[in-house]
Amino acid sequence: MAFTFQINNDVKFRHDEVLLAKAEANRPEIQHLKVEPGRIVDVVEDSTKLNGYWVAENGKQIEKLKEYGLRRDESLILDFGDHYVGRFQVDIDSVGSPMDAPLMLRFKFAEMPVELVQESSEYNGWLSKSWIQEEIVHIDELPVTLAIPRRYSFRYVEIKVLDTSPKWQAVFSSPVLTTESSADMTKLSKVTLADEQLQKIYDVGVKTLADCMQDVFEDGPKRDRRLWLGDLRLQALANYATFDNVDLVKRCLYLFAGMTTEEGKISANVFVKPQNVPDDTFLFEYSLFFISTLSDLYKAHSDQMLIQELVRELYPVAKTQMDLTLTMIDENGKLITDENYPVFVDWSNDFNKDTAGQGEIIYVLKQFIALATIVGDEQREKYEEKLTLISNYAREQLFNREQMLFVTGDNEYNIASQVWMVLSHVMTDKENNAIMMQTVKELFPVKDIATPYMYHHIVEALFEADLYKEAVELMKYYWGMMIDLGADTYWEAFDPDQPDYSPYGMSIVNSYCHAWSCTPVYLIRKYLLD
Amino acid sequence: MAFTFQINNDVKFRHDEVLLAKAEANRPEIQHLKVEPGRIVDVVEDSTKLNGYWVAENGKQIEKLKEYGLRRDESLILDFGDHYVGRFQVDIDSVGSPMDAPLMLRFKFAEMPVELVQESSEYNGWLSKSWIQEEIVHIDELPVTLAIPRRYSFRYVEIKVLDTSPKWQAVFSSPVLTTESSADMTKLSKVTLADEQLQKIYDVGVKTLADCMQDVFEDGPKRDRRLWLGDLRLQALANYATFDNVDLVKRCLYLFAGMTTEEGKISANVFVKPQNVPDDTFLFEYSLFFISTLSDLYKAHSDQMLIQELVRELYPVAKTQMDLTLTMIDENGKLITDENYPVFVDWSNDFNKDTAGQGEIIYVLKQFIALATIVGDEQREKYEEKLTLISNYAREQLFNREQMLFVTGDNEYNIASQVWMVLSHVMTDKENNAIMMQTVKELFPVKDIATPYMYHHIVEALFEADLYKEAVELMKYYWGMMIDLGADTYWEAFDPDQPDYSPYGMSIVNSYCHAWSCTPVYLIRKYLLD
Repeated sequence: MAFTFQINNDVKFRHDEVLLAKAEANRPEIQHLKVEPGRIVDVVEDSTKLNGYWVAENGKQIEKLKEYGLRRDESLILDFGDHYVGRFQVDIDSVGSPMDAPLMLRFKFAEMPVELVQESSEYNGWLSKSWIQEEIVHIDELPVTLAIPRRYSFRYVEIKVLDTSPKWQAVFSSPVLTTESSADMTKLSKVTLADEQLQKIYDVGVKTLADCMQDVFEDGPKRDRRLWLGDLRLQALANYATFDNVDLVKRCLYLFAGMTTEEGKISANVFVKPQNVPDDTFLFEYSLFFISTLSDLYKAHSDQMLIQELVRELYPVAKTQMDLTLTMIDENGKLITDENYPVFVDWSNDFNKDTAGQGEIIYVLKQFIALATIVGDEQREKYEEKLTLISNYAREQLFNREQMLFVTGDNEYNIASQVWMVLSHVMTDKENNAIMMQTVKELFPVKDIATPYMYHHIVEALFEADLYKEAVELMKYYWGMMIDLGADTYWEAFDPDQPDYSPYGMSIVNSYCHAWSCTPVYLIRKYLLD
Repeated sequence: MAFTFQINNDVKFRHDEVLLAKAEANRPEIQHLKVEPGRIVDVVEDSTKLNGYWVAENGKQIEKLKEYGLRRDESLILDFGDHYVGRFQVDIDSVGSPMDAPLMLRFKFAEMPVELVQESSEYNGWLSKSWIQEEIVHIDELPVTLAIPRRYSFRYVEIKVLDTSPKWQAVFSSPVLTTESSADMTKLSKVTLADEQLQKIYDVGVKTLADCMQDVFEDGPKRDRRLWLGDLRLQALANYATFDNVDLVKRCLYLFAGMTTEEGKISANVFVKPQNVPDDTFLFEYSLFFISTLSDLYKAHSDQMLIQELVRELYPVAKTQMDLTLTMIDENGKLITDENYPVFVDWSNDFNKDTAGQGEIIYVLKQFIALATIVGDEQREKYEEKLTLISNYAREQLFNREQMLFVTGDNEYNIASQVWMVLSHVMTDKENNAIMMQTVKELFPVKDIATPYMYHHIVEALFEADLYKEAVELMKYYWGMMIDLGADTYWEAFDPDQPDYSPYGMSIVNSYCHAWSCTPVYLIRKYLLD
């Protein structure tokens, strides 16, 4: 998630230590694996790959790494063969005359080759340059085993000698990556798909999810590295379809529930290091998706007594989110949006999101009522009445039967409105099918959407509207193109019409492993396998 | 020392573990002191100071340091009030919204303000840029006490925030420097000079020496940070006049004696971390100065039985240096120089050094014969014969009685020849006086000499020639000008005719605390006090 900074540092938060203790109790064990690079490569121009760059072997052999003495400005790139999250270490020594000056090195950790080409000194975007995965290190004494303390997200490591002295060269050996992930690969059941492309799309989705599973479900292990509720909802769904780490979902729910504002609102994301802190950013549906995530967990594991208890325990927090949201509904059942509590839907702010937001509240209210039924909330009827009011407004005021599409704002017809209304099932299945047919006919192809998050909901709406062929086509087009362009994991941002576009001005701060893009795992499992 | 790189990495060295164990046994204890910065400053233009830069208070108060939240590209400079060698630490926290990105900082450690102005990215000199005292640090979690692990040599610390995020600022508190030096200030007897300028020149010399006294006598605590024999000789002389740390001199002598080439030659410098390693650089008189340093130690402490034993123990190593050098003398007593074993005298290679080298061998041979007498070497007479031969050649072939100056090379008359012949006392005191009078008259002012090392020998020759007034004048002119330009400690390189000149292309790699410049301490004590 990114794009708009909110600063609300006057908001007061409550810390519920009972819930936070449970978040702590569900902290996952981080799994480690040692990985050695498979080859030494150069970045090469390749117009078929992202930003026009790929890698190729350069004649240097990884087995002979220690023979390559590096002088000032000389470098080499290690290729670990796949995307990983973890820590890097390498043995360093000198050859030639005695070491008469410190060794000065630059390490670049890259998820994609383009990051190795771009110069951090040229970055001047609004996003913090501190995210650029680059370290400059001085070493006074050799030999040394240099274990770089920070965690990085990468496939490639460029080691560049910024300087030795004219009298000696630096040599490197035993580079190794110690991975970090709370995804337990042994829990993963193998999925075999007849369609080779779908198989690849599925596998890359699993890798994306696994690399984002850390101490919490992180949004991106390279950048942001924190728990966003919108990402959590999708990660949890992908997780039930794969690793099924229930404790990690519980931990994340407890974290959000344990740190609300004084009025009870859940923030869009939280930090957990060095201590638990909620961010002062609030998004309309991210707060609501606490309910969805709780509901999805119940659906995935309703047979478990502990999950039933969890629903009961967190229901009051869920109810507060719904109650706060319902204050935004007018007497006609219309959602009155608030720019200080924005409806997100997608990064783009170039389309009206009112109807999509109305769809989201219907979507979540239905989930909430199901939870109210489970816990036996006596006020359940009140919410059913609200659902009727809001749904009726949608059907009667927002749906244009002639167009067979939902309108939003000032007579605007956009994809997002249709998608969220279809996902909310405010219309009949038959109508939904017609709406998405009409969407495909009138509003496709998708334009100016750069988030896998939005693409996910479009694909899901197609599946829900029984347009399986179109859903699979779009999934293959979007996630398949990332793979064709060289993705080992899926990206935070991708617009197929302008693959090289970075929302930050330079790809060097892009996140090329981002949780909200892992959902083909869930979509394939739910709509094509189960 | 610097300027010419020798690469002789085919040379084989012996390690005498008995001598090296004694070097280890004489390892000094490093003294520590906590120092807090006295003020927050800005670099300002000031044409009276080195390179046109000085510092001035900027209204920010050091007591309120924690109140100054720094955003991207904002910085502040801490002034510790004097030059120190040691390690820096500071407490860091964030203010504003939660810390949603790593903190990226740059630390610059500067001995002189000009280092804060110059950009390391613009440095492209031949000397390793790894010496530039700059660190870029990423911090993932705040608050933190950041203790930067490397030792630096500095008075000023610039902390620059390369990035936070738009949502929060970084704040700093409790900056502290933990000094490192093996100079024991309690051993220092106070010297009071009537001449205020000489007092200041003396005091800055003591500080220079103290900051170069580390695990060995380092040449410069910022740059090179190692034991050079030419520097050691001068540091040891200054040390007897001040801290009188005899063990440290012994340690350094053992290190050189313990690591000679297979033929017994002593290298110009050695490294001691992570292990003892001799450099593959050889200088004619640096090898010889092992004898001088041993002789000077004996003269300073001839009353001590242990020193007498030390002379006996190291005499064979000293003798080898002399024997190797005497092979360079032809049958007429003339030194035949060898460009692979260069006569140093000064960085400049724009003057002929043959006669200076001839003077140096006479200077050292006399010291050697004195040592031979002490140890009762039966071959002493042989060296006296050589002394006569070499001295006669100097007097008869190199001295021009009409000019009252020594000639060198192709009818060249330079200062270095006179200085080293006077220091060698190959002529009578009366002649020496006349030679230096003539030198002052014909060859002064000193031109194109940028080393305090050479200036030291010129001043000493003036003293030895009984030209006290001229000696003091030159000392005040040279070292006094460094003080006027802002020196807290004396510099590695300084040419009064072009104060801003850096031998490395940029001042950022200059060493502004360099051992071979500390000698006013010795000169004042020897010629003006004792």
